[in-house]
Amino acid sequence: MRSSDHPFDQAITLTLKEDGTLHGRTSGHYWNAISPFGGTTVATLLQAMLTHPQRLGDPLALTVNFAGPIKEGDFIVRVSPVRTGRSTQHWQMEIRQHADEEPAITGTAVFAVRRDTWSDTEARLPDVTPPDALPRHPAPARVPFLERYDMRYVDGDPLRGTEDSATRCWIGDVPPRKLDFPSVAAYCDSFVPRLFVRKGAPTPISTVTLSINFHVDSETLAQQQGMFAFGAAKANAFNGGFYDQEGRIWSQDGALLATTHQLVWFRDQAL
Amino acid sequence: MRSSDHPFDQAITLTLKEDGTLHGRTSGHYWNAISPFGGTTVATLLQAMLTHPQRLGDPLALTVNFAGPIKEGDFIVRVSPVRTGRSTQHWQMEIRQHADEEPAITGTAVFAVRRDTWSDTEARLPDVTPPDALPRHPAPARVPFLERYDMRYVDGDPLRGTEDSATRCWIGDVPPRKLDFPSVAAYCDSFVPRLFVRKGAPTPISTVTLSINFHVDSETLAQQQGMFAFGAAKANAFNGGFYDQEGRIWSQDGALLATTHQLVWFRDQAL
Repeated sequence: MRSSDHPFDQAITLTLKEDGTLHGRTSGHYWNAISPFGGTTVATLLQAMLTHPQRLGDPLALTVNFAGPIKEGDFIVRVSPVRTGRSTQHWQMEIRQHADEEPAITGTAVFAVRRDTWSDTEARLPDVTPPDALPRHPAPARVPFLERYDMRYVDGDPLRGTEDSATRCWIGDVPPRKLDFPSVAAYCDSFVPRLFVRKGAPTPISTVTLSINFHVDSETLAQQQGMFAFGAAKANAFNGGFYDQEGRIWSQDGALLATTHQLVWFRDQAL
Repeated sequence: MRSSDHPFDQAITLTLKEDGTLHGRTSGHYWNAISPFGGTTVATLLQAMLTHPQRLGDPLALTVNFAGPIKEGDFIVRVSPVRTGRSTQHWQMEIRQHADEEPAITGTAVFAVRRDTWSDTEARLPDVTPPDALPRHPAPARVPFLERYDMRYVDGDPLRGTEDSATRCWIGDVPPRKLDFPSVAAYCDSFVPRLFVRKGAPTPISTVTLSINFHVDSETLAQQQGMFAFGAAKANAFNGGFYDQEGRIWSQDGALLATTHQLVWFRDQAL
């Protein structure tokens, strides 16, 4: 399968219209319960910057805010560099479905040129069973985008209803696809929601805002072998209808690719 | 000392001009080596939203990007709600020093109304020596803003040049000041830089982007006793001239107030 034929590449494809606007379209393959999978939305914004003619360097950090629902259909992406320095470039981003409506998505991003410096990784890939020796976990709910991710948990069933929301798993695309910045960004939103882990079952949730810090440049990322990434995630707190999720993503070779955190709205069905 | 007389309150004070713009001024008390302490900048943006007539609820999350230098003197703050829902409100923020220049600071924020739901905190305040039983740590460098923070480390000297950048300390304002959202936001940027911890000495660094997730509402925050917060911070990776820092902030009563992460540019003096 050529990369461009992969459903993920189709999902994040953008078309430049004659009036200079970038247009995308929600993907049935990456549809969530009532809206697109947020990871695809983040990856689409990243793709818009990666293919922008004024781009400097590689993605360093981004924050995407889910301000309103995206409905099935077309959407307009706007990414603009607001300030470019010698080593960093700051972007503003938004997605609207109609030019006269409030944005559904807002955000900012930083791209950067990395230099050869002293380096060290404190967050190391844990010593765990490799993905080939683990079964694919059945999706916990019948939603399309879950069919597009091959999740292999190293500590057993994530929906175990425990006192600790931490989970660890291998993450791969279906069908397999080489890691790149858009796919890693999407992986950052692919963790089973921490509330499901605690409660042992799906409940109504919605990501409010998601941030990613990248820890490799494009050259290092291109050198990574293996079609899986390893992800570890946990929550710090659930309180007043919102909870957070923190995650780390490594390559199979052990490179720390990204760290991410998000805040999630939830509805407490017990009340 | 009345709250409004505190140098921190003076530093984040904003004035509404006749043309509708909000103006601030850099504070000598919170000056860093060559620019304002970033924590004050973040707190000033937060203060602008907290005092905005259209504000909904309490701060939930924010990302502040340090796109260019702020020079000593006046600056213009712009915060605008871009989309307000039933329980969340999304903001865009920027700071410029001259209306016709590129922004020095960009960012987004989310405010939210919390509801009574199931709650649990997984990130617990460690069992450590209370601040009254610890000495104030001497500032590692002669910069004004460090005089405004009373840091009391529970694991000894942070500039120890170890293989692990993790530090834990009590953080208080000088003079003492009750915790509120702006001060907690500033604490999120007050951790001694992770590179200094690893190298055992200050080196040239600059925060590129900083994000904060808040885990309490204003009512809970107002109930917290004690003039210190407890902070734990660490880095995940140093690579190619950039490193990250993750931190957690608790009240003395043990409430998790905020989690934060930032990406920092650094110059490698060894090369």
